[in-house]
Amino acid sequence: MSNYPYPMLNRPSMIWTKQTDKTSDLKVHEWIETAGDTEVNWSNYDVTILGIPLSKSSISTSAASENPDAMRQAWKSFGTYNLDEDIDLATLKVIDLGDVKQHVTDIAYSHKRIKEAMVAIRSHHPHTFPISIGGDHSITAMLVKGWKEAHPNETIGILQLDSHFDLRDLKTFGPANGTPIRNLIESGTVKGSHVHNIGLHGFFNAKELKDYADHVGVNYTTMKQARKKGIQQVITDALEQLSQQVDTIYLTVDMDVLDIIHGPGTPAAAPGGMYTEELFDAVQTAGEHPKVKAMDIVCLDPRKDVGQITVKNAVHTMLSFLTGYCKREK
Amino acid sequence: MSNYPYPMLNRPSMIWTKQTDKTSDLKVHEWIETAGDTEVNWSNYDVTILGIPLSKSSISTSAASENPDAMRQAWKSFGTYNLDEDIDLATLKVIDLGDVKQHVTDIAYSHKRIKEAMVAIRSHHPHTFPISIGGDHSITAMLVKGWKEAHPNETIGILQLDSHFDLRDLKTFGPANGTPIRNLIESGTVKGSHVHNIGLHGFFNAKELKDYADHVGVNYTTMKQARKKGIQQVITDALEQLSQQVDTIYLTVDMDVLDIIHGPGTPAAAPGGMYTEELFDAVQTAGEHPKVKAMDIVCLDPRKDVGQITVKNAVHTMLSFLTGYCKREK
Amino acid sequence: MSNYPYPMLNRPSMIWTKQTDKTSDLKVHEWIETAGDTEVNWSNYDVTILGIPLSKSSISTSAASENPDAMRQAWKSFGTYNLDEDIDLATLKVIDLGDVKQHVTDIAYSHKRIKEAMVAIRSHHPHTFPISIGGDHSITAMLVKGWKEAHPNETIGILQLDSHFDLRDLKTFGPANGTPIRNLIESGTVKGSHVHNIGLHGFFNAKELKDYADHVGVNYTTMKQARKKGIQQVITDALEQLSQQVDTIYLTVDMDVLDIIHGPGTPAAAPGGMYTEELFDAVQTAGEHPKVKAMDIVCLDPRKDVGQITVKNAVHTMLSFLTGYCKREK
Amino acid sequence: MSNYPYPMLNRPSMIWTKQTDKTSDLKVHEWIETAGDTEVNWSNYDVTILGIPLSKSSISTSAASENPDAMRQAWKSFGTYNLDEDIDLATLKVIDLGDVKQHVTDIAYSHKRIKEAMVAIRSHHPHTFPISIGGDHSITAMLVKGWKEAHPNETIGILQLDSHFDLRDLKTFGPANGTPIRNLIESGTVKGSHVHNIGLHGFFNAKELKDYADHVGVNYTTMKQARKKGIQQVITDALEQLSQQVDTIYLTVDMDVLDIIHGPGTPAAAPGGMYTEELFDAVQTAGEHPKVKAMDIVCLDPRKDVGQITVKNAVHTMLSFLTGYCKREK
Amino acid sequence: MSNYPYPMLNRPSMIWTKQTDKTSDLKVHEWIETAGDTEVNWSNYDVTILGIPLSKSSISTSAASENPDAMRQAWKSFGTYNLDEDIDLATLKVIDLGDVKQHVTDIAYSHKRIKEAMVAIRSHHPHTFPISIGGDHSITAMLVKGWKEAHPNETIGILQLDSHFDLRDLKTFGPANGTPIRNLIESGTVKGSHVHNIGLHGFFNAKELKDYADHVGVNYTTMKQARKKGIQQVITDALEQLSQQVDTIYLTVDMDVLDIIHGPGTPAAAPGGMYTEELFDAVQTAGEHPKVKAMDIVCLDPRKDVGQITVKNAVHTMLSFLTGYCKREK
Amino acid sequence: MSNYPYPMLNRPSMIWTKQTDKTSDLKVHEWIETAGDTEVNWSNYDVTILGIPLSKSSISTSAASENPDAMRQAWKSFGTYNLDEDIDLATLKVIDLGDVKQHVTDIAYSHKRIKEAMVAIRSHHPHTFPISIGGDHSITAMLVKGWKEAHPNETIGILQLDSHFDLRDLKTFGPANGTPIRNLIESGTVKGSHVHNIGLHGFFNAKELKDYADHVGVNYTTMKQARKKGIQQVITDALEQLSQQVDTIYLTVDMDVLDIIHGPGTPAAAPGGMYTEELFDAVQTAGEHPKVKAMDIVCLDPRKDVGQITVKNAVHTMLSFLTGYCKREK
Repeated sequence: MSNYPYPMLNRPSMIWTKQTDKTSDLKVHEWIETAGDTEVNWSNYDVTILGIPLSKSSISTSAASENPDAMRQAWKSFGTYNLDEDIDLATLKVIDLGDVKQHVTDIAYSHKRIKEAMVAIRSHHPHTFPISIGGDHSITAMLVKGWKEAHPNETIGILQLDSHFDLRDLKTFGPANGTPIRNLIESGTVKGSHVHNIGLHGFFNAKELKDYADHVGVNYTTMKQARKKGIQQVITDALEQLSQQVDTIYLTVDMDVLDIIHGPGTPAAAPGGMYTEELFDAVQTAGEHPKVKAMDIVCLDPRKDVGQITVKNAVHTMLSFLTGYCKREK
Repeated sequence: MSNYPYPMLNRPSMIWTKQTDKTSDLKVHEWIETAGDTEVNWSNYDVTILGIPLSKSSISTSAASENPDAMRQAWKSFGTYNLDEDIDLATLKVIDLGDVKQHVTDIAYSHKRIKEAMVAIRSHHPHTFPISIGGDHSITAMLVKGWKEAHPNETIGILQLDSHFDLRDLKTFGPANGTPIRNLIESGTVKGSHVHNIGLHGFFNAKELKDYADHVGVNYTTMKQARKKGIQQVITDALEQLSQQVDTIYLTVDMDVLDIIHGPGTPAAAPGGMYTEELFDAVQTAGEHPKVKAMDIVCLDPRKDVGQITVKNAVHTMLSFLTGYCKREK
Repeated sequence: MSNYPYPMLNRPSMIWTKQTDKTSDLKVHEWIETAGDTEVNWSNYDVTILGIPLSKSSISTSAASENPDAMRQAWKSFGTYNLDEDIDLATLKVIDLGDVKQHVTDIAYSHKRIKEAMVAIRSHHPHTFPISIGGDHSITAMLVKGWKEAHPNETIGILQLDSHFDLRDLKTFGPANGTPIRNLIESGTVKGSHVHNIGLHGFFNAKELKDYADHVGVNYTTMKQARKKGIQQVITDALEQLSQQVDTIYLTVDMDVLDIIHGPGTPAAAPGGMYTEELFDAVQTAGEHPKVKAMDIVCLDPRKDVGQITVKNAVHTMLSFLTGYCKREK
Repeated sequence: MSNYPYPMLNRPSMIWTKQTDKTSDLKVHEWIETAGDTEVNWSNYDVTILGIPLSKSSISTSAASENPDAMRQAWKSFGTYNLDEDIDLATLKVIDLGDVKQHVTDIAYSHKRIKEAMVAIRSHHPHTFPISIGGDHSITAMLVKGWKEAHPNETIGILQLDSHFDLRDLKTFGPANGTPIRNLIESGTVKGSHVHNIGLHGFFNAKELKDYADHVGVNYTTMKQARKKGIQQVITDALEQLSQQVDTIYLTVDMDVLDIIHGPGTPAAAPGGMYTEELFDAVQTAGEHPKVKAMDIVCLDPRKDVGQITVKNAVHTMLSFLTGYCKREK
Repeated sequence: MSNYPYPMLNRPSMIWTKQTDKTSDLKVHEWIETAGDTEVNWSNYDVTILGIPLSKSSISTSAASENPDAMRQAWKSFGTYNLDEDIDLATLKVIDLGDVKQHVTDIAYSHKRIKEAMVAIRSHHPHTFPISIGGDHSITAMLVKGWKEAHPNETIGILQLDSHFDLRDLKTFGPANGTPIRNLIESGTVKGSHVHNIGLHGFFNAKELKDYADHVGVNYTTMKQARKKGIQQVITDALEQLSQQVDTIYLTVDMDVLDIIHGPGTPAAAPGGMYTEELFDAVQTAGEHPKVKAMDIVCLDPRKDVGQITVKNAVHTMLSFLTGYCKREK
Repeated sequence: MSNYPYPMLNRPSMIWTKQTDKTSDLKVHEWIETAGDTEVNWSNYDVTILGIPLSKSSISTSAASENPDAMRQAWKSFGTYNLDEDIDLATLKVIDLGDVKQHVTDIAYSHKRIKEAMVAIRSHHPHTFPISIGGDHSITAMLVKGWKEAHPNETIGILQLDSHFDLRDLKTFGPANGTPIRNLIESGTVKGSHVHNIGLHGFFNAKELKDYADHVGVNYTTMKQARKKGIQQVITDALEQLSQQVDTIYLTVDMDVLDIIHGPGTPAAAPGGMYTEELFDAVQTAGEHPKVKAMDIVCLDPRKDVGQITVKNAVHTMLSFLTGYCKREK
């Protein structure tokens, strides 16, 4: 394929065969196109999907590397039409670029390729909205650094839905799934005060990390605080505040922000978390905001999932976001 | 058994042996009688239960055929006394008729028997309230047609709790679990405007089906709309409106109306659905309404269930409905 | 160990090795000490944990005997710092005493040892707050009787979070998991009117038990009633009322008070129950009350659990209680 | 039922409804009759089945109490005709007596009832062959004692297929699943030299138990020794030797004699065990022997089973035994 | 695709993307080509694979309809090189045609399409060897009838590896998974004496079916008989005998011929069956025989599988057959 | 602990508390000592156990990092006395050193520590026999290199029980679980002709790897070849040949050498493998040989296990080896 500018990618491992020229009752796998053997006219696309099958960088054991394919399998059971909003996502053109190639034993090299993939996306078709499917949370640091490299003059803010700060010490852990936000702050990519973390659970963040968060000015709202105030309000406030400070808001959704009953398939699944109706509303609101320019979904281990609950919730998260995005487009 | 007028039925596969002449601490399996070898005095009974072990008519793979026996096993762990309402269901007399005989390879013939079973129920002991336990949603079309055949002059309305319209094209699918409501409308059994569908999820209904629903006047409220308005209010409004238009309201509960965390054991389990506390209240309210004259519970695949969550929720749905029914009786 | 005054206990089966002299990022298993080979200075401790691996006394099959070790394993994934309240539980000193020795075939003898363990705790270090981890609910009768033996002049009240009355007939069942509250009432240990049971589900309590509860004056609020009134309000009212009548409030949490989706791992898991956010708030409130002087967590069968949901919720229940306790201490 | 002489039994919890007067393609559940509401002509029967739902007496946690019903459910998928031998088991008349009533908290009382049940069987219809379905191995001691009480002058031998000696110390464990053979020896019911234990695994028997076995003259052959010699040969030799010494050979099959891949559903499932083809041949051979007069199958926990492997293997074990029994009858 | 002569097929639902022009370390999914958008030069191919996702025709509940995709997923973990025989299957050219389209509610119509697919295969590229992946055993009747229609003058024999006769009464069951061989005999497609069934288990075939088998001259060897004689010998004898009587030997492998430990994922999984080493040798031997001209693999329900054991064994069965086929080719 | 010379190790995460001074009925966890807080007299010990929780180096997703603790948990159910051989392993003194510390994102650094651990073992108490519990197969290269560094003048041979060659290209994969033997050969640590690989499966090794094996002179016997010749014979021959060529034979057991039914919990579980009775005999034989001086067990992912089959088989493998070792000692 001559114009597939992605030496660092494997094309999607599975291509869903389009069985018919369906124009009605379109399922998500019949809508999202895949980068295949033929020429791609990039100008046709609105959204790109990037799979990042890396979870060797996780602190606890994780098969989040298998999530990109798990979500691709699962979105076969979703349609493109959102009856709640009378919006058909099929008005957007979406292409699945495939997966970033991973090295078996060299995590740093895999991370380098992830960053390069984002640089390439921003260089070759910057009009498209990139959605990255992890993999673990370490990838967020690489993706945001890639964005920064492609747009060195932009100020970037982070809207993070997460049960953890992800501010652990880089010196101890390296670029792991517990350190991406600290990585971005320490590298000067993002300012602490441009990070808004919403949904932190009670017993899963060390006091030291809170102190660090306070020190660098990270904004955070625990799940319990968010629910009292109204999650929609918290999200709206964060977007409002960020939009006055930064050029680009990067939305990162760590699926462990969910309560364990909604997200049993996350390595750190825990009580006291968000409900899906709250999460879907939150990301739809973010999708509507014009400064939200990239998104990722991370830390979902399909092997740990129960009854596909988490994987389906992750697909719905992506589709809820795109519903907001469609509203924005109008 | 001389007066068991059901050549199209197998008697319940299991008969729970009554171990003692218990009059207290009655469990549901000790309360519901089963049609056995002895004469039945039909005039004694208030409610009949009919098992319909058919799911070959499902679009996706389903073992909903095993649900009647799964619910019979599970209701052993429920008592008859509802502490919340201080109502003892044991004041009702309930008999389990058994299961409609199924043909291994001839779905049309199985469907014919289901219809005949409802005709027989309405002919032999019309004072009893029939509860049908599916099987998949295709059975609803047969049961309502059976009712219509037994009562040709009645106008029938449908109160449907479902994540789907079930209005797919009959020409493509035949009498499948995606088509029962369309089947009833196209056959003239029920008018579109006499259907109220509550609880539809966001991404699981094609735009074409919404257009068809609008065209034939089906009333519908998505889950998100219903929650905003209050589900109790939506149910009450639907019952009110229907009661002015029809003689008989048929309640059909597709268990996939539940959110995937409450109903992991439905073939189409999906995010964005109803919670059980909402469902139990909804059916109890329907149970209180004098025009609700029949009910079914469908599309529960016990093999797909997790920790018996869905099967137990289905049993509770039946018992919540009967709690409402007891209030009506008073 | 010369001053380990517990001939009726086995020390904890596992001792988590302290790998480092960590002072930060403390996990619960690094914080809770275990009674080992060295001398214990009991005056240093605020809270004692007692494992009671008994579930042979359960009416239905239960492996709740494996719960003490399951919770010990699971609390490894919790930290001591509660971000929601900015409280670090590590300000409390906690010691795990180990498990009450069980006889293979003599349940009465095992029960005797449980009672003796509570007597020993109250005798040797009465300043510590005892948390008992069952095991099934039969143990509560033994623990409260032990307390009474150690403090014969105290009046004891019970705050019970449970889906059942636990008032079944002792003559039929013996000291089983369905009879502990009746056992305490009939033995004169606790007065019926000093029992407050909150969270009872609809279809899981016989009419006879309600009549008995009314007869002996047990106070109860069903789950549905509690949710209408506000669970926090119900808890506060119960504590208020009890605190005027008794010297000591014993808090017993039967995990089956939870809805089946939050507590799939309880032998009697059922629909219509409490949500974890409600439970965590309830026990935190109880933790704050100075008259609450002992607590247990019972009826959790880890083999029946799904995705560790119930076990993690149980650990969080203990930590939420201790959060309240820390507030009390200040 | 006037002539159901079993006050200590509950009738089978489930009665499989005979749907038709089938004379061909008979399934096991259509063949085995159940003691129901009508008079039983005991003289018609050849074999009686007794369920013993007791596993509170197990050293490790066990739900073997659920095995009688699990096997009853599973034998629905077996036919009565054994194609391998051209023998139709339906030539035997078999009746399922039901389950011995269990006390919730008094194991000794449950044991007493088990013994009484065997006495009753031997008194009321001694011409029938009793098959007992456990439950755990503690029941064997009670059943053999019951036999001895009914036939005080008979000498009894034991053919035991087991991975364990079951000779643990009664003083420590009481009448648990680790002590039945010692119980029989110490009580003088059976002589040590009249016990033949075949199939013991390598690492699951303490040296002390071997010494005790040697001391009291128990005959034993480890799995590895048995396989070298040929299991059929070992069985034949044991039967031969026993038949010269005793009047009655009692066959007890502890399902943990199987290798873990054939018996994953036993509490003590372990490597290094018997294969089913060996076990089926062994019990068929025992079935042929005229002095084998009773049999039990124990220590199968259906909750621990994988893909119903162990439960189906247990049903096949019973049917293989009866195949041998049919040959004997001719 | 202009020359894809299969209106009755859907192309494979998934196309494994060839990531590189690998010439070494070829995995099965990189070797088997899929009928895609481009022209196919049929003369290049040696073997065709046909998926048949039908299991509505099964007597018991079955998701064997999901097996074609399950095997396609699983063969990704197998290589093409057989180290045991030093044979590289990649010397064969194999194309996956896709799946026969299924009707949701009309089994007869689905069966018609299956037959048409075989007719088309035999008409368009009769030099290729067809391997059909079911689906349930009902498909074998359709496939053999299709072969007969394409080659009306050929005499066809059946080599069947199965735990069942599959000779049930067509009048009762219709063209179900219990009747295919009877269907072929009664329709005159195959003579009873040209059927060799090897591996029948003990308790899973009614006496009536044996009598019918004897009546129509079906040759059969039970698993126990086969093992005594040596399975290789039995297979060789059957092939020898058939090769003197028929033009074409059709090999059908019902995966339930395996013992339950090797095939837990078959709807009728049962004790007393074949081991995989026996099955692999048997099909490899059949693969070597020049008169074996078609093969199918049926009755594998991937949802019922445990640890992918059965699906992987089915893939190995196909590859062992092709190993034999390669030897034949030389 | 002053004389714990292992800065690169964490002590075992769990210490099994010795509840009593048992001298009889010793379980494995009561026998194996753990390096704790007190001084260790190394001269007392015969065998050391080293846990290596690394599986980030695996080609496919693996939680083999959790295997050391899984085996420690599982050996609680094994006794020390081997009835088959009348050998009590407790005559050996064994100490569990703990686990090699792992870096979250730097695999090379983790590998370095593994090597250092072996060097330390050989330096500090070279009279002990080291058993290493992986982790994935990449660790074998590190352990053998560590041995070589400690004993530079020794010639080392490898006895490998494995379904794979593990000779993949280091340039592509790095020091992964597919490359350890090539790593040892290319680094000059071991000669190709001093490697004996037994048990290779059919379809899981590329032709290129066989060619490389032939090129460097690796000796190999496929599973099928080994079974024809007799596995004991193959092992004996390999040991015999190696003992004439090398000073030290290192035994490495990749659990995927087992058939998928015996080892469902290996990442590459596949049909066509070894049975446990064959494996146990093989390692016992190796244990007897005086030149076998170290052993490891690798590539077992406990999360993928079914019914603990693989973990228990791995523990038995270790104990069978030590049984052989005891015979050697005498």
